[in-house]
Amino acid sequence: MTTALYRRVAFVGLGLIASSMAHAIRGASLAAQMSGTARSAETRDIAREIGLVDQVCDTAAEAVAGADLVVLCAPVGAMADIAREIGPHLAPGATVTDVGSVKQAVIDAVGPHLPGHVHFIPGHPLAGTEHSGPRAGFAGLFRNRWCILTPLEGCDAGALDRLTRLWQGMGSQIDLMDAPHHDLVLAVTSHTPHLIAYTMVGVADDLRRVTDSEVIKYSAAGFRDFTRIAASDPVMWRDVFLTNKDATLEILGRFTEELFALQRAIRRGDGAQLQDYFTRTRAIRRGIIEAGQDTDAPDFGRQNT
Amino acid sequence: MTTALYRRVAFVGLGLIASSMAHAIRGASLAAQMSGTARSAETRDIAREIGLVDQVCDTAAEAVAGADLVVLCAPVGAMADIAREIGPHLAPGATVTDVGSVKQAVIDAVGPHLPGHVHFIPGHPLAGTEHSGPRAGFAGLFRNRWCILTPLEGCDAGALDRLTRLWQGMGSQIDLMDAPHHDLVLAVTSHTPHLIAYTMVGVADDLRRVTDSEVIKYSAAGFRDFTRIAASDPVMWRDVFLTNKDATLEILGRFTEELFALQRAIRRGDGAQLQDYFTRTRAIRRGIIEAGQDTDAPDFGRQNT
Repeated sequence: MTTALYRRVAFVGLGLIASSMAHAIRGASLAAQMSGTARSAETRDIAREIGLVDQVCDTAAEAVAGADLVVLCAPVGAMADIAREIGPHLAPGATVTDVGSVKQAVIDAVGPHLPGHVHFIPGHPLAGTEHSGPRAGFAGLFRNRWCILTPLEGCDAGALDRLTRLWQGMGSQIDLMDAPHHDLVLAVTSHTPHLIAYTMVGVADDLRRVTDSEVIKYSAAGFRDFTRIAASDPVMWRDVFLTNKDATLEILGRFTEELFALQRAIRRGDGAQLQDYFTRTRAIRRGIIEAGQDTDAPDFGRQNT
Repeated sequence: MTTALYRRVAFVGLGLIASSMAHAIRGASLAAQMSGTARSAETRDIAREIGLVDQVCDTAAEAVAGADLVVLCAPVGAMADIAREIGPHLAPGATVTDVGSVKQAVIDAVGPHLPGHVHFIPGHPLAGTEHSGPRAGFAGLFRNRWCILTPLEGCDAGALDRLTRLWQGMGSQIDLMDAPHHDLVLAVTSHTPHLIAYTMVGVADDLRRVTDSEVIKYSAAGFRDFTRIAASDPVMWRDVFLTNKDATLEILGRFTEELFALQRAIRRGDGAQLQDYFTRTRAIRRGIIEAGQDTDAPDFGRQNT
């Protein structure tokens, strides 16, 4: 049996990540009590209705009172206002963490509003689905997924250890890195792929007028995987691109450069260049399967319903 | 029980699609006998070893002799040579079809080499995995997937009906359209997404030197879906882009135009434009789930091993 790591965990924001954490924390008895709040009254009502946490509060100030762990689960663009609101109400010795997809911008937005007597440890669980909101959560979301923590200089070792054990208790593996490096790695593995997927789906949407429902009908030919990526929460992703602007633009620049080279090879009929390029990418795929981050089942593990 | 639709089905090329057809045809007793050949001796040896078809021949001319259905399962770029070789050996009244991802180029390459006494009905099953070769096939590959046939003017109705029933017997749904329209629809739903995925994986491969194994480690954040698409057969895809050049370049042009607009919105910090764009794409995703072409399971139906 796990002993509760925290007396009271407070969630500010009750979407997919917070609700999944609530299920996972309850399932593994990692906290004695949980509170939560959300900006939208509708979200708070749903959270009350499904009993997501022990206490759903109308304000963030109330939710964080007496909490020894506060988890900021709002879009990155909303974090400065939240930090300003909760700052005066945080308990001495409490840990404040977040689950934002960008880390340097969160540190810049949140840090200045926190009192000196709390431990601020930014975090980012690399897990998600195409669904959002308090009903979307499930306890297994973080299982075998990475959670990256980006502690600041002079971070309290005890507070870091306790937060690490919380994520491990929810099934995650933990990695530590500094915030700028996190933002670059995620620009490659997540932010730019999402922008590209959104763009491709947008193009297909324009063409839908030409091709009727055919884009949807024949989506299994490859396009489907893009729509899955591009179905994530629009506000969250807006904030990701606004706050990880430099790294995203840097990777986008490399992407368009390579795309133009392939486009030119197609136009000139340079089959050798295309084949070489396409051969090289298989090695990366094999690495991902070997790293246990995906399955190589013939139908990708999907059920053909 | 299904009655055999064909006396003898001959496969030219024994990769993922041919081997899946062989399993599906055998499983549903859709043909009395099957023969096959492949350019590579290694592939033919594997096919013999696993008993993929009744007779593995060393040449395409031998394989098609006496067949009432010939299925060209080679990369599009190899089809002209194959058609030239088999033309004189085709049985009168036989149907010749193919499974190429591009249709007009196949018609141009194959048509001129076929004798007047055969029925040529180009086809394209919209199914695949990241795996290739004769061991990759499985009978369920075509279940609930679309197969597009692009019959030419004056196509024999009886031959078309028989081929339709073969694909239905393997679990596919059939659609008919003309070749240029097929090539445009597939440029949107398949060819351009594949090129983009290959490009993004290539960019990540370059950056791997900077980020060590982190690209692979954190791939579940979105990048993973790109690597799945980009792991398909390099030669097949080389030929797709060389032979569906115009439609692919057209869609690529639209894609880069939209991508630049989003890139500019990021650079200028235009959150409203980004959010609007990302919101619009959700509708397409819902359409795909409603059309039964994917699942909305929280973990995408994947097993977390």
